[in-house]
Amino acid sequence: MKKVLLLGAGLSTFHLVEYLAQIPDMQLTIADALLENAQKRAAPYSHIKAIQVGDIEQIEKAIEKTDAVISMLPPTLHVQIAKFCLKHQKHLLTASYLSEEMKALHQEAMSKNILFLNECGLDPGIDHLSAMAYIHDLQNRGETIVGFESYCGGLVAPLSDNNPWHYKITWNPRNVVVAGQGSMATYLQDGVVKLVPYGRLFQTVTPISIEDYGNFVAYPNRNSLQYAELYGLKNVKTLLRGTLRRPAFCAAWQELIEWGYTDDTTIIPNSENITYQQLFEQLQPNSALSPLYLEHWQYLGLLSAEKIGIEDATPAKVLQKAMQQNLKMQPQDQDMIVMVHRISTEKQTITAKLVVIGEGGERTAMSKTVGLPLAIATQLLVENKITLRGVQIPIQSELYQPILAELERYKIVFK
Amino acid sequence: MKKVLLLGAGLSTFHLVEYLAQIPDMQLTIADALLENAQKRAAPYSHIKAIQVGDIEQIEKAIEKTDAVISMLPPTLHVQIAKFCLKHQKHLLTASYLSEEMKALHQEAMSKNILFLNECGLDPGIDHLSAMAYIHDLQNRGETIVGFESYCGGLVAPLSDNNPWHYKITWNPRNVVVAGQGSMATYLQDGVVKLVPYGRLFQTVTPISIEDYGNFVAYPNRNSLQYAELYGLKNVKTLLRGTLRRPAFCAAWQELIEWGYTDDTTIIPNSENITYQQLFEQLQPNSALSPLYLEHWQYLGLLSAEKIGIEDATPAKVLQKAMQQNLKMQPQDQDMIVMVHRISTEKQTITAKLVVIGEGGERTAMSKTVGLPLAIATQLLVENKITLRGVQIPIQSELYQPILAELERYKIVFK
Repeated sequence: MKKVLLLGAGLSTFHLVEYLAQIPDMQLTIADALLENAQKRAAPYSHIKAIQVGDIEQIEKAIEKTDAVISMLPPTLHVQIAKFCLKHQKHLLTASYLSEEMKALHQEAMSKNILFLNECGLDPGIDHLSAMAYIHDLQNRGETIVGFESYCGGLVAPLSDNNPWHYKITWNPRNVVVAGQGSMATYLQDGVVKLVPYGRLFQTVTPISIEDYGNFVAYPNRNSLQYAELYGLKNVKTLLRGTLRRPAFCAAWQELIEWGYTDDTTIIPNSENITYQQLFEQLQPNSALSPLYLEHWQYLGLLSAEKIGIEDATPAKVLQKAMQQNLKMQPQDQDMIVMVHRISTEKQTITAKLVVIGEGGERTAMSKTVGLPLAIATQLLVENKITLRGVQIPIQSELYQPILAELERYKIVFK
Repeated sequence: MKKVLLLGAGLSTFHLVEYLAQIPDMQLTIADALLENAQKRAAPYSHIKAIQVGDIEQIEKAIEKTDAVISMLPPTLHVQIAKFCLKHQKHLLTASYLSEEMKALHQEAMSKNILFLNECGLDPGIDHLSAMAYIHDLQNRGETIVGFESYCGGLVAPLSDNNPWHYKITWNPRNVVVAGQGSMATYLQDGVVKLVPYGRLFQTVTPISIEDYGNFVAYPNRNSLQYAELYGLKNVKTLLRGTLRRPAFCAAWQELIEWGYTDDTTIIPNSENITYQQLFEQLQPNSALSPLYLEHWQYLGLLSAEKIGIEDATPAKVLQKAMQQNLKMQPQDQDMIVMVHRISTEKQTITAKLVVIGEGGERTAMSKTVGLPLAIATQLLVENKITLRGVQIPIQSELYQPILAELERYKIVFK
């Protein structure tokens, strides 16, 4: 009987736990800083244990007693967790981006014969699995890939879409607010490296249309250039990864950025006591122009006479509060995951589209698409069907073939 | 005989040393990381010593042997230097902005009966001295100040102005390139706090016209709000500090920002081998619009077929190189310092203007206006005419009266 430890029982672990629960000959323990969170996840299953891990020492003790660890904790903790896994010789699986510090542990993980599998969720995760399946298939047919575009977004399903943003918060709201800040987005377009500063990121968009689901746009996501080497695309002239939103979202968001609403470095004087309307006036350009997307801003409450009520707030914190209040998923709402790959060879362009609609409540498309790849990889590992060791992301056929096949059973399939 | 140590003998210490050299009963030692820099400054004066300080230990040893220290070293070193001054009970004078870490040393400096005088150069420096003289004068006449604006710029004098930017590098070029990055500029306008994000900083400008010198514009400088308390302006409704440039500079710079040329966080792929023209294409928006200020950009060489030649360069580093090459002061060029205060009471608005023209070579207006306040303050201190102790900036009449009087002898006088 293999023992698996799941660290973190928060939102979006519903499908992960549901899948893990039915793996034969496996003992799952769910650990969370709040015991009730862990208990709630474990409750439907008599054979799953729930424990509390209040600090890093308790996390280490729990790791010591297991065979493999799945971490859904904040990514900043993953290197520390990986070091415990090295010390006690345990496998580790996460859905988080592979960090440089994690990469540096590769040799040590190899020498201890353990697997640190990162980026095995949705995006990153299903993007790698599906892209590599298409890329290898085309390359095996002797075609040379000259263009690779990949877009993904977590959105609200059309049936639950009842606001002018055509968006609801289905993931970490802070990440939505500060998305694109930091280094310039970088991609390759017709052989030219393109650098896009934050100030025009949300107007540098690619239109994407999906039958039955309407129009989307994608803004460039971080550094796309690294995927040439990662995916083995030597002759590629266009290489772009982007985040999907509805067109109105990007247009209205672009204006929010121009006004300064996404700034997270400036403390607004007396922020606790001023109103949203007053902040609007403080950020208003001297030309006193109204934003073109005033309706969208009003919907967020950015023109309301209500007090902001946050001490030492930055504009980004105010915007996050407004979004959490006014773009909130309701219990009956359905979310939607959209992923699109557009791959060009010298002969053809193929477009692969994935749409997953949530079923309401905790059965979200986000939870399903993040949790299932991780859960399936765990089963493969527990059943000794993965020979890979060291620090990895799921780009090998050993991983993507069985995981994609299993996802298909859950209607997660590209068209 | 009092002993004074000058740390740093770089550019803009010409007038500082010239003034210090004629203070009676004072022994000046000039210390620099490069002995030849210190020797060059000391050379005209038989009674000035030049020494080398290769590391922080040697700086401490030099501080131990003196009575007062003037530091023209990079501001990041000043807290360390101040701690040595505390340890060995020496006064310290700088032209740099007062940092929070420096402020924290106030009580200790008081208890040791020493003065740490910061912000005693041009801007900060002469701005404080002159503003406080006007403010106290108006307040002493019973007037209530409702508006305070202060603008300053280091520019090229009209006779040496021969480029479309109407600008040449007369100060730290890196600071010119990254000016305005970080927190939003904050000021008060007709009773409303205004927050200006970097993305529209150089288009949020105030026009300033000066007879015989033509038109300027000022963009907001950091956080102006703190000056209400600092300058004792309780009833102020407008409070704005800004940096002066010629109008074309701000307009062309605004476009550089929008294109991403001032970004200092993104490493340009293969930056050493691509040309300026290629970077221009990489940063070009997808709409493929040309900038409106193409002539200005061409003047900087941003469209040239020359290789950039800097390894792992950010766009900001490339822009800095282009500016240093193409907006360079020539030996015969004259620089120009412009400072304007606009102070409104309930009865009147007074405008005070200072223009200082450099005399070419090392006799720059920048060196004169940064160095003389520091040198005069040093003389006052050496002659025991300053009773202030602790961490200070020059806003008391004890300082501004004698310093402004002496500056007037050097034709540094507001009109």
